[in-house]
Amino acid sequence: MPVRTTDEMPDPPSRPTLAVIAAEAGVSPATVSKVLNGRTDVAAATRERVEALLRTHHYPGPGGVARRARRSGLIDLVLAGLDSPWAVEILRGVEAECAEHGTGVVVSLVRDDDARPPSWQNLPALHHSDGVILVTSRMTHRQRAQLEKAGVGLVLVDPVNLPDTDIASVGATNWAGGLAATEHLIGLGHRRIGMIGGPADMLCTQARVDGYRTALERAGIEVDKDLVRYGDFHHRGGFARTRELLELPAPPTAIFAGSDEQAMGAYQAARLAGLRIPEDLSVVGFDDLPTCEWLSPPLTTVRQPLEEMGRVAARTLLQLLDGRPPLTPRVELATDLRVRASTAPPPTEDR
Amino acid sequence: MPVRTTDEMPDPPSRPTLAVIAAEAGVSPATVSKVLNGRTDVAAATRERVEALLRTHHYPGPGGVARRARRSGLIDLVLAGLDSPWAVEILRGVEAECAEHGTGVVVSLVRDDDARPPSWQNLPALHHSDGVILVTSRMTHRQRAQLEKAGVGLVLVDPVNLPDTDIASVGATNWAGGLAATEHLIGLGHRRIGMIGGPADMLCTQARVDGYRTALERAGIEVDKDLVRYGDFHHRGGFARTRELLELPAPPTAIFAGSDEQAMGAYQAARLAGLRIPEDLSVVGFDDLPTCEWLSPPLTTVRQPLEEMGRVAARTLLQLLDGRPPLTPRVELATDLRVRASTAPPPTEDR
Repeated sequence: MPVRTTDEMPDPPSRPTLAVIAAEAGVSPATVSKVLNGRTDVAAATRERVEALLRTHHYPGPGGVARRARRSGLIDLVLAGLDSPWAVEILRGVEAECAEHGTGVVVSLVRDDDARPPSWQNLPALHHSDGVILVTSRMTHRQRAQLEKAGVGLVLVDPVNLPDTDIASVGATNWAGGLAATEHLIGLGHRRIGMIGGPADMLCTQARVDGYRTALERAGIEVDKDLVRYGDFHHRGGFARTRELLELPAPPTAIFAGSDEQAMGAYQAARLAGLRIPEDLSVVGFDDLPTCEWLSPPLTTVRQPLEEMGRVAARTLLQLLDGRPPLTPRVELATDLRVRASTAPPPTEDR
Repeated sequence: MPVRTTDEMPDPPSRPTLAVIAAEAGVSPATVSKVLNGRTDVAAATRERVEALLRTHHYPGPGGVARRARRSGLIDLVLAGLDSPWAVEILRGVEAECAEHGTGVVVSLVRDDDARPPSWQNLPALHHSDGVILVTSRMTHRQRAQLEKAGVGLVLVDPVNLPDTDIASVGATNWAGGLAATEHLIGLGHRRIGMIGGPADMLCTQARVDGYRTALERAGIEVDKDLVRYGDFHHRGGFARTRELLELPAPPTAIFAGSDEQAMGAYQAARLAGLRIPEDLSVVGFDDLPTCEWLSPPLTTVRQPLEEMGRVAARTLLQLLDGRPPLTPRVELATDLRVRASTAPPPTEDR
């Protein structure tokens, strides 16, 4: 494995001396030094002014010292799959934020089934990267401990599970999205609403299903367990689950799919069953991929701000690396229902 | 900008000594040393055996020495856009190939309009990467010279232009794809076939349009310039150009779109014009994105082996870095027509 050797390392970028920063801040070099070393005998206002200047000139802040000295200007973005346009949206946000901070994004996939490529928790050591953004993955306590030992930062996007509540993570308001989608369908007059979740063990699936159930309960509609199905987030999952739902003795008049790709699978299953969307079957998706408005008919869906989620994850990681932990470990960005042409009142005989 | 400093570089990976390799090859250590230093006084068969062992153990080959000593195990993948599922397919191939070689892929976008992030030709210096894969981009002689000066490898995927014919590049057989798509439509009985290219100045567009023209000429059909349009490769381009084509006094009965996304735009334009696909209008796409088979109706399209193109680009770059230039600078992987449900004979009155 080729590894960078020490003899061709460039010099660190030139930074102004502490004396220059002291002059800029209107304090003595000794004060700058105190701030740099995290000493507490400096007035708060002075400390703030000096810290801002130090950050501007890429000096490590107090608490960030140990890490900053090792910064490589690279982070790892580890995706559970690259088989969905969904992943690109996250990547775009991460790349945009990192580009603004002169940080490179090393993209790789989790390969649980293949021993040859290194497992993701070894990546930072391999690339000397400063931190990891891990997307829709499962993490064990042991993996977390390995990352801690490596001294790199970690931010999760849509984690499958949360082994420790103090790990920074970014998601969307999945519960509110599930609620909004279901209330939209109830408002149109639907009473038998099928729900297709992603894998049952994912946090985001659980939150969406709970939002769906709450909407039904609030409308006085009994939750029929037969109408709730789980499958992968891709076309095939949506197709297979929709076929099952349409074959029920009392099939649903509307389907709330866990992803836009699942919704496309539902379109196909409806077409093969001779059902028109939205006249015979309403469909709501989740994500709002760019493709949604180009489907026939354009898809009503719950928008996740995926690019913004990528941006926030990157920003959080870069701040962590600067020794500034987030105010709360978990951030959820707002979802938003986009009503297009795939939803309508149910057929008359079903009202 | 944080830069890795010299004091925390890990040791290079342990490699067997030349004596061990000599023993494995059944030669003297002096012979191994000669091969390593590119001396010519070694028998060809011996040289080959030793070189293979050296490669296995990550020793630089002759000619690869200068670069190999600086290898960081990172390459840059620079994309013109991350707004299409197309890009993910390329990325997936690059990532898979690099993962097998323990090489990290730093992904970034060209940002011609933004001065803040570094322009792509500076990226290798920024990340200390070993080389660049540049996707669907335009390159000037000056940019090429900058990369040469930086001493990094370069491979192009679907270049907009080719400033020098000796740069390694990977593409698909666009001309043959254009020919196959058009011949398929002619075979169904179509005579007025609209063609939507990508941007007119792209090599891949030109090759596809030429394939389209040749197919028409071979069938004795005059090429009507009004039926050939150019636009961006996205939904909007396909939508706008299809609308124009359908508004012609003698509109086409079939459309060959330059990308699957354009084809989706054509679907939408057809729907709004009250035309059914394929009964009233046949549509052929280009790319074969995973989405194609989930469209209503599933899209007939020209498959580009995008993932394989990414793999070949990565493999070519890694070989370049090992001092093994490709046999031919330009490689074109075969395209392949996938017939699905969006093409049929033209309406009876148009036959």
